[in-house]
Amino acid sequence: MANGDLFGKDVKVNLKLLEVPSAMKTLHGIQMELDDCNFIPLGDVVITDEPEVAFGDAEYVFMMGAKPRLRGMERSDLLQDNAKIFASHGRALGKVASKDVKVLIAGNPSNTNTLVALSNAGDLGPSNFAGMMQLDVNRAKSIVSKYCGAPHTTINDIIIWGNHSPTLYPDLNHAQVKGFKAMELIENDWYIKDYIPAVQNRGHSVIEWLGVSSAASAANAAIQQMKIWIGKGGSQLWDSMAVLSSGQYGIESDLVFSFPIRHARTKLFVVDNLELDEYSESMIRLSEDELISERDEIRHLL
Amino acid sequence: MANGDLFGKDVKVNLKLLEVPSAMKTLHGIQMELDDCNFIPLGDVVITDEPEVAFGDAEYVFMMGAKPRLRGMERSDLLQDNAKIFASHGRALGKVASKDVKVLIAGNPSNTNTLVALSNAGDLGPSNFAGMMQLDVNRAKSIVSKYCGAPHTTINDIIIWGNHSPTLYPDLNHAQVKGFKAMELIENDWYIKDYIPAVQNRGHSVIEWLGVSSAASAANAAIQQMKIWIGKGGSQLWDSMAVLSSGQYGIESDLVFSFPIRHARTKLFVVDNLELDEYSESMIRLSEDELISERDEIRHLL
Repeated sequence: MANGDLFGKDVKVNLKLLEVPSAMKTLHGIQMELDDCNFIPLGDVVITDEPEVAFGDAEYVFMMGAKPRLRGMERSDLLQDNAKIFASHGRALGKVASKDVKVLIAGNPSNTNTLVALSNAGDLGPSNFAGMMQLDVNRAKSIVSKYCGAPHTTINDIIIWGNHSPTLYPDLNHAQVKGFKAMELIENDWYIKDYIPAVQNRGHSVIEWLGVSSAASAANAAIQQMKIWIGKGGSQLWDSMAVLSSGQYGIESDLVFSFPIRHARTKLFVVDNLELDEYSESMIRLSEDELISERDEIRHLL
Repeated sequence: MANGDLFGKDVKVNLKLLEVPSAMKTLHGIQMELDDCNFIPLGDVVITDEPEVAFGDAEYVFMMGAKPRLRGMERSDLLQDNAKIFASHGRALGKVASKDVKVLIAGNPSNTNTLVALSNAGDLGPSNFAGMMQLDVNRAKSIVSKYCGAPHTTINDIIIWGNHSPTLYPDLNHAQVKGFKAMELIENDWYIKDYIPAVQNRGHSVIEWLGVSSAASAANAAIQQMKIWIGKGGSQLWDSMAVLSSGQYGIESDLVFSFPIRHARTKLFVVDNLELDEYSESMIRLSEDELISERDEIRHLL
């Protein structure tokens, strides 16, 4: 962002960086490095541990982090702790952010965190919020690219459905590779047994090799996803993004679900007329079930 | 580089990434993240622990790392160990790299590592090699920018002289801030007592706050420095880069020294007609002395 990758070299970018109090020292170090980059588009950089300072008049918000799962912590504790954080951040956003703010949430569990944030954001509406799915799209694309020996630029219209979790469903039934229907080039057996689990578990694989989470590719995906949102990028037919369901494809409303999304005049629309085969239907239900159970655990915060 | 920041969005970039054998697992993780970025300009990515594979037909080489100083290690051990590495990498470059290769060296001690590499590179000449000084230029600029309350884009013609070490001399005597002579806006006392040590020790300060070395700002500086070298960026009058001295300003030849540099048709020229005051002369001698002593310790490898 600071270097112009999101808005272009001619648009001045002011950054407000939010961290927890215990990480403010590191954040100061990051501010020094930003200073030492002499990025031409970079204006002011504010560092703070107060959400209302960070979100004040904010037009674009990236919530990249969340409380990580610590040793001995149950999955449900993690859900609860993060839901509390995203509820309070949602309130702060509703109070001080620009009314047109675009809030992109990547901190896990990102779909449910997005649901909590938008449910607590006062005057802001669901269209101010989206959960990031672009990293999954990119992973889905890079694995097909290797399998088919085709550059990723020739692969289009993969859909990621559902939760940003190992239940997500990378759908190749509508995708093209080099202008061919993807499923005409791909063994169904590989698709079901290798491809889908590989995309679902790619985050874990990267951690295994890299030793830490995939921060660089997540940051890149966040820029790409926001570019799509503001109409400066994206695929010809659709992209995938997690937005509040209003019942499309029979998905319960009041869930933040990843759908195929079309962009028009800074608004996002769910592409809601695709035919799904039985297998796709069943995969989508699995991810819906997971999101329902996550929602039920934090319903008191909605 | 992979995203087009160095050569532009339309130039395909093939990367060969070199690591030591013990870091190959992490490097594999980095390759996965690069795949998952779906960068349009990125072509092939090869990972290897063999210098002759990494440098084969290479046109642009970034040597960002070096053996770090470990606990209990003497400074002279560090010099020796790195000199051996850079001598063998220099030989590999001479054997397999493109004859027009541009090798930018940032791994510390970077000036002496550059001297060793270019001295062992066979048919490659000194003009194929430079030591990176852009991070120091950027730091020098960002500190003046804060002091004067002037955007860094309005600050020009700072010179960094000497070694990329705490003896470097950030020279503001020829610099401008918002079109004014910098030294007319700056207290001489602040310049001598605060500014110079702050620039010299900025790397240590960043480590103190950040907890780790300044990798992001170093990567950014490497891109900026290579852009200057290939004529795609840089200041109006001069930039600073560490190149083999041929006696300019009385600096011993056979040292890699940071000078003001002008770029013309992909070649670098030392700007050799600047007047230096007594203080500047003395500061430059201090850095020269340090480089002479470093060179004397590894002379058997030249």
